[in-house]
Amino acid sequence: MKKDAFYLPQGMIYLDGNSLGPMPVNAASRVQHTVNDEWKNLLITGWNKAGWYHQPRVLGDRLAPLIGATEGTVVIGDTLSIKVYQALAASLQMRPKRHVILSDTGNFPTDLYMAEGLIKSFDRGDSPTLELKVVEPESIADHLDESVAVMMLTHVDYRTGRMHDMAELTRKAHDKGVVALWDLAHSAGALPVHLTECKAEFAVGCTYKYLNAGPGSPAFIYVRPDIADSAEPALSGWMGHSNPFAFDRHYQAAPAIERMRIGTPPVLQMAALDAALDVWDDVSIVDVRSKSIELTELFIDEVERRCPELTLHSPRDAAQRGSQVSFTFDEGYAVIQALIAEGVIGDFRAPDVLRFGFTPLYIDNDDVLKAATILEKIMANRSWDQPAYKQRSAVT
Amino acid sequence: MKKDAFYLPQGMIYLDGNSLGPMPVNAASRVQHTVNDEWKNLLITGWNKAGWYHQPRVLGDRLAPLIGATEGTVVIGDTLSIKVYQALAASLQMRPKRHVILSDTGNFPTDLYMAEGLIKSFDRGDSPTLELKVVEPESIADHLDESVAVMMLTHVDYRTGRMHDMAELTRKAHDKGVVALWDLAHSAGALPVHLTECKAEFAVGCTYKYLNAGPGSPAFIYVRPDIADSAEPALSGWMGHSNPFAFDRHYQAAPAIERMRIGTPPVLQMAALDAALDVWDDVSIVDVRSKSIELTELFIDEVERRCPELTLHSPRDAAQRGSQVSFTFDEGYAVIQALIAEGVIGDFRAPDVLRFGFTPLYIDNDDVLKAATILEKIMANRSWDQPAYKQRSAVT
Repeated sequence: MKKDAFYLPQGMIYLDGNSLGPMPVNAASRVQHTVNDEWKNLLITGWNKAGWYHQPRVLGDRLAPLIGATEGTVVIGDTLSIKVYQALAASLQMRPKRHVILSDTGNFPTDLYMAEGLIKSFDRGDSPTLELKVVEPESIADHLDESVAVMMLTHVDYRTGRMHDMAELTRKAHDKGVVALWDLAHSAGALPVHLTECKAEFAVGCTYKYLNAGPGSPAFIYVRPDIADSAEPALSGWMGHSNPFAFDRHYQAAPAIERMRIGTPPVLQMAALDAALDVWDDVSIVDVRSKSIELTELFIDEVERRCPELTLHSPRDAAQRGSQVSFTFDEGYAVIQALIAEGVIGDFRAPDVLRFGFTPLYIDNDDVLKAATILEKIMANRSWDQPAYKQRSAVT
Repeated sequence: MKKDAFYLPQGMIYLDGNSLGPMPVNAASRVQHTVNDEWKNLLITGWNKAGWYHQPRVLGDRLAPLIGATEGTVVIGDTLSIKVYQALAASLQMRPKRHVILSDTGNFPTDLYMAEGLIKSFDRGDSPTLELKVVEPESIADHLDESVAVMMLTHVDYRTGRMHDMAELTRKAHDKGVVALWDLAHSAGALPVHLTECKAEFAVGCTYKYLNAGPGSPAFIYVRPDIADSAEPALSGWMGHSNPFAFDRHYQAAPAIERMRIGTPPVLQMAALDAALDVWDDVSIVDVRSKSIELTELFIDEVERRCPELTLHSPRDAAQRGSQVSFTFDEGYAVIQALIAEGVIGDFRAPDVLRFGFTPLYIDNDDVLKAATILEKIMANRSWDQPAYKQRSAVT
């Protein structure tokens, strides 16, 4: 749909945009401008003159339509882990008499780790009062009760691509007075999200996957506007102060979403994000979703037909699937290495998951067919069965 | 000392390196390489092949000697506010029976704000047990007692440049069983710091001031090695897990300093930091300090002689002063604007502080004399007394 807007190395079929998106062609010049014109020539005055200071809000507003949010409800900054912590802490302060954080086994580990760390530090000394309850994805609704302060879920499962029904689960959570917190890491830029409509209190996400903003690009946080003025940010840094440059002795949270800012934002990374968001000026997320379904359906059909050794690990029903397709295979790690050697970039998730992301912005049917053909050949010839492909690196 | 290593706009005398350092000449190409070679061509494999994954540790090790720390004790990431929170939370967990966070009025507001937010969220529901006690800088030692869990101080005061005696206060804190946490925002790269020697448990700092790593560059955290394996990170993200890519269900802190990592690090900002650290390959921080004292002494002498309307706000004794000089004047804001219009970049800190940073890496005696001459002219002619200079912008 926008293949020309991205740089993709010759001969590479990149099915790992769900991990790190490729470089938008305008990203290099945008970052270079920020470094070599703005920082270089404006120095400290760049915070005003180049608009760095307000960029977290400006970029939040640019991103908002992709997740069904309105102006002034999204802000950029920090990492997804930090934004999870902020949203969790604010949720707990909204429900002081409840003690459970409810999540599921399909949540990305860092979300669960952040909850564990929060509980450990909040429950200082005395007997622990907070609890992280992690259940099967299918049983979330059964565990919503008056003990639950917040339901923290990742919309699209990072391993299987299984997608929760955000509207339905949020409604059920609200029926029990539970705050809803959605992690949109595998949703933002991949499929339409309707935050305003579903009335979730909080959402967080990253921008380096389907939003293609580059390695280590900042996260985002959404707060429902009617609660934004009372949400306690917990990580209350000076950029979230109502008047940061008054250097007041006490913290006074800024109105609305601005209070979710913490420290000095990463100006170079924001420049890349700004360039990456240009792509959406003339692409509709609805069209991206239809095409994504077409691509994932095609891949499933082709791989199941050609590679009987692999077991589909994603929902077969496209309506319950995000923009990725996963298969399991005992030697999945080696297969992914063999694929990478042939120019097909997917990734592996322990213990045995082969994961392939489909981003219609730069992947088309032809790419899907080529990838399936290469995978078929690798499986048929067992060319994955080499020591070099089985040697695991520390980072994958 | 290294003027050629920085880009400084023609005719500008930049005395605001204590807010944002100028661009090192090699920063632009280093960042460009990371974007336009690494991200562009390596995509997801950059985490391994370009070493992005380990960069927070590698950069921590490069920075360590500047603050008197040893290899493996410093890691890069997030913002200073976040690192303050991590160090504070870990300190409190080390002293579960104590309830006071002791700080002073000279601390940078965000440090105090983060403490306030932490207390508010940790003391959930029940009667508050934690307390932030903020006293005058001179009386810190008098307030060290068995109620204090952690002494959180900024080494060099951002307004006055007044420097605490880190060794002495740390010793006194330890005498009372108090954990010492130092904010080195105005110290790292400005003057020698002896972390190992003074035995402080924690130190944090930013890299965009005297370390010249660019707008929004990441922070650093130091943890004394003998406690690093037991320090609770509180913000327990997956990059601080002992085995992040196992995607375990439970958080298991990595050994030593690695556990203070949280989420995905900002790769483009780290590239700029890497370039900025090159400057120290052949400069000694001891020499930087001697020259800095010479420059600040010269500026104080010249300004006091030429501008009797200004009152010195920094300690007169160089041994008690960081690398900045501040003066007060009721119309300080307008004076700073008039200076900026003449190419002398200092900054203003509410309510009436004119602040000038001296970085011998790119500032010399001639710059100091020129700046003093221009300031003298502005004061003598009252050329600051114009509506345009009194109109305050939201961000300064």
